[in-house]
Amino acid sequence: MKTTKEILVLAKAAARELRCASENKINAALISMASALIENKDKILEANEKDVAAATGVISDVMIDRLKLTEDRIAAMARGIREIAALPSPLGKVLKHTERPNGLVIERVSAPIGVIAIIYESRPNVTSDAAALALKSGNACVLRGGKEAYNSARAITDALSSGIKKAGLPESSVELLYDTTRAGAAELMSARGYVDLLIPRGGAGLINACVENAKVPCLETGTGICHLYVDKSADIKKALDIVENGKTSRPSVCNALEVCLVHEDVAEEFLPLMRDRLVQRAVPVELRLDEAAMRVIDGTPARDADFDTEFLDYIMAVKVVSSKEEAVAHIEAHSTHHSEAIITEDEAAANYFTDNVDSAAVYVNASTRFTDGGEFGLGCEMGISTQKMHARGPLGIEELTTYKYIVRGNGQIR
Amino acid sequence: MKTTKEILVLAKAAARELRCASENKINAALISMASALIENKDKILEANEKDVAAATGVISDVMIDRLKLTEDRIAAMARGIREIAALPSPLGKVLKHTERPNGLVIERVSAPIGVIAIIYESRPNVTSDAAALALKSGNACVLRGGKEAYNSARAITDALSSGIKKAGLPESSVELLYDTTRAGAAELMSARGYVDLLIPRGGAGLINACVENAKVPCLETGTGICHLYVDKSADIKKALDIVENGKTSRPSVCNALEVCLVHEDVAEEFLPLMRDRLVQRAVPVELRLDEAAMRVIDGTPARDADFDTEFLDYIMAVKVVSSKEEAVAHIEAHSTHHSEAIITEDEAAANYFTDNVDSAAVYVNASTRFTDGGEFGLGCEMGISTQKMHARGPLGIEELTTYKYIVRGNGQIR
Repeated sequence: MKTTKEILVLAKAAARELRCASENKINAALISMASALIENKDKILEANEKDVAAATGVISDVMIDRLKLTEDRIAAMARGIREIAALPSPLGKVLKHTERPNGLVIERVSAPIGVIAIIYESRPNVTSDAAALALKSGNACVLRGGKEAYNSARAITDALSSGIKKAGLPESSVELLYDTTRAGAAELMSARGYVDLLIPRGGAGLINACVENAKVPCLETGTGICHLYVDKSADIKKALDIVENGKTSRPSVCNALEVCLVHEDVAEEFLPLMRDRLVQRAVPVELRLDEAAMRVIDGTPARDADFDTEFLDYIMAVKVVSSKEEAVAHIEAHSTHHSEAIITEDEAAANYFTDNVDSAAVYVNASTRFTDGGEFGLGCEMGISTQKMHARGPLGIEELTTYKYIVRGNGQIR
Repeated sequence: MKTTKEILVLAKAAARELRCASENKINAALISMASALIENKDKILEANEKDVAAATGVISDVMIDRLKLTEDRIAAMARGIREIAALPSPLGKVLKHTERPNGLVIERVSAPIGVIAIIYESRPNVTSDAAALALKSGNACVLRGGKEAYNSARAITDALSSGIKKAGLPESSVELLYDTTRAGAAELMSARGYVDLLIPRGGAGLINACVENAKVPCLETGTGICHLYVDKSADIKKALDIVENGKTSRPSVCNALEVCLVHEDVAEEFLPLMRDRLVQRAVPVELRLDEAAMRVIDGTPARDADFDTEFLDYIMAVKVVSSKEEAVAHIEAHSTHHSEAIITEDEAAANYFTDNVDSAAVYVNASTRFTDGGEFGLGCEMGISTQKMHARGPLGIEELTTYKYIVRGNGQIR
């Protein structure tokens, strides 16, 4: 059983080797990882049964379902890795080429980041996704999973490492901490010189703990208080389809809608129709309404806090506004800067919204549910960044790279 | 006298206004800032005299010289701002355009970061440089200068703010903290929701304090233990010119050379010539030599720590290596990943070096002294990043932007 420090030293050495690995070698290692998952599926299922047995009665049924692996789920993980292998490499691209008057040729070339640490919770498939995305971008990764999924994550990591080794790359390209306590996470957060980038994946508590305490560069991900603004010139049918999709297609995810702002000119037409769509369904949505909305439809009176809550549930806050400016000001004050949408047929209103709303993704006449690596055409993702440094929105393989400047001269001095 | 919190609230509001300011308006504000510096030069010089008087005898003469302003220096600051105004805007560029099979049009568009906080030490010109770079990129900035330069920084900031206001943009686009204590810096470091990016500019102590303690995204800048590797197939004349330039042209800066690695095959030819160049000069360089180098030339025996020290002085550590692999391994173990150079006429050796050395800038046959925004053609810079997130190497106006995704649809749901 290696200590966290020993693991970090191994991962750093692996990252150094990966830095110069060819695209073919990396893809071969990914394919080999996928095969190793299938070959070791019995071991993985056995380990997962232990986790599920220990967690039963301790965590909710929904969480147990997230934790549980089946042969199909393992096959899906392997397929996911093969899809990542098939993507074009993000490495070695000349992003910029400059020739200076003194003859220096300066190239900005994409390169791996190095060691990426990922602190996550209990979904075992994150283990293989994260490892594959990191490796495709030439990085080693150090994973620290939740203790409920430890046996599963260990079995998956062992399989992935063996696959990588078989393909001739260092098995420490993927490492899992043995320490599943807070101390293990804290050690990663302060491992300056070993961890080049820390990505927390999970709930707001975990992400906040990382952002507050990390001494290594950290990417804030995830929390989404997403807004839909139904403008006075909205196409009401589009607005209804999009509010229903945004709120009910998967309420537990970060790109789901939490707040609907409605222009007063269309409130009397739109709100009753929206209520029909959202309330008259198998699982009704609880609407938390501001005073003006309460005058038009029935619902729960909203408290102030409802406009600052990521419900992740069949609940939505609703507010009537008197202008697009008020809508944008409300979003500015309450958004987590993840995804917001306007429904409008008025191009000037759309442009005002996209210019003024400062979020990772700003939509015109489309659902916020599209903020996702796959939907953006990135193939996959490591999470959604809600900060403005490094990368914003879905983190695909390109966002897991950095660059270096390569400068070629002929004896130039300054 | 505003509190730090009040300043942050004002800066955030200013950033919101700047987000939608046109390129022309921003450039006009920059020109107006430059004029305001000249118009207020008497006030600025008077304030500076106070600082210089208070600091005399307290800080070193070199530091006093850095602190001191003259009419010429103020004119140079104004010229610097005008040059920044003349650069093309880094904002509103479509960095990526994707049309998805479902008809969504996804654009990645460059955008301001928001509020940039800069904690710096005593050079007054940083005040105007930082403010101008931030504004050109559409950002508000909150400055926290050193207490030795407080009166100067206040007079400069007042002038800049008045210039911005005259051009019709918010005067709080540039704010200077009244609090010059550590508490002021600490408040900036933990101002989540107000500070989108923190950039420390100064010595290793300041930078470490920021990296260790910041709860807001922070860019690590500056420290440079830069290496020159003289390969066995080096052109000795180029090597001599570059080692002299790298070490002696300005030893106090982060891109100056600190360590020279010499291949054993050329050590007997190169080292005596290098010694002549570096030691026989008005200000001789102290060479700290490993055992093998000591067998060839005279100098101070190096201790281990000499290979991990940013001397910022006329001192250089020298080591003989038996291969390019050993040189790269030494750099991997001791570099701060700022800038490294190889001198070689062998293309394979050059490629090995650029592939394997993981630094912001990797040079072939040129001086590390070129790692600089101006020299890279960026026009100017806010510092040199030595981390791998967001930006690496010189931080120009483009590196002070982020992007957002603008997604246009016609009612798409997922």
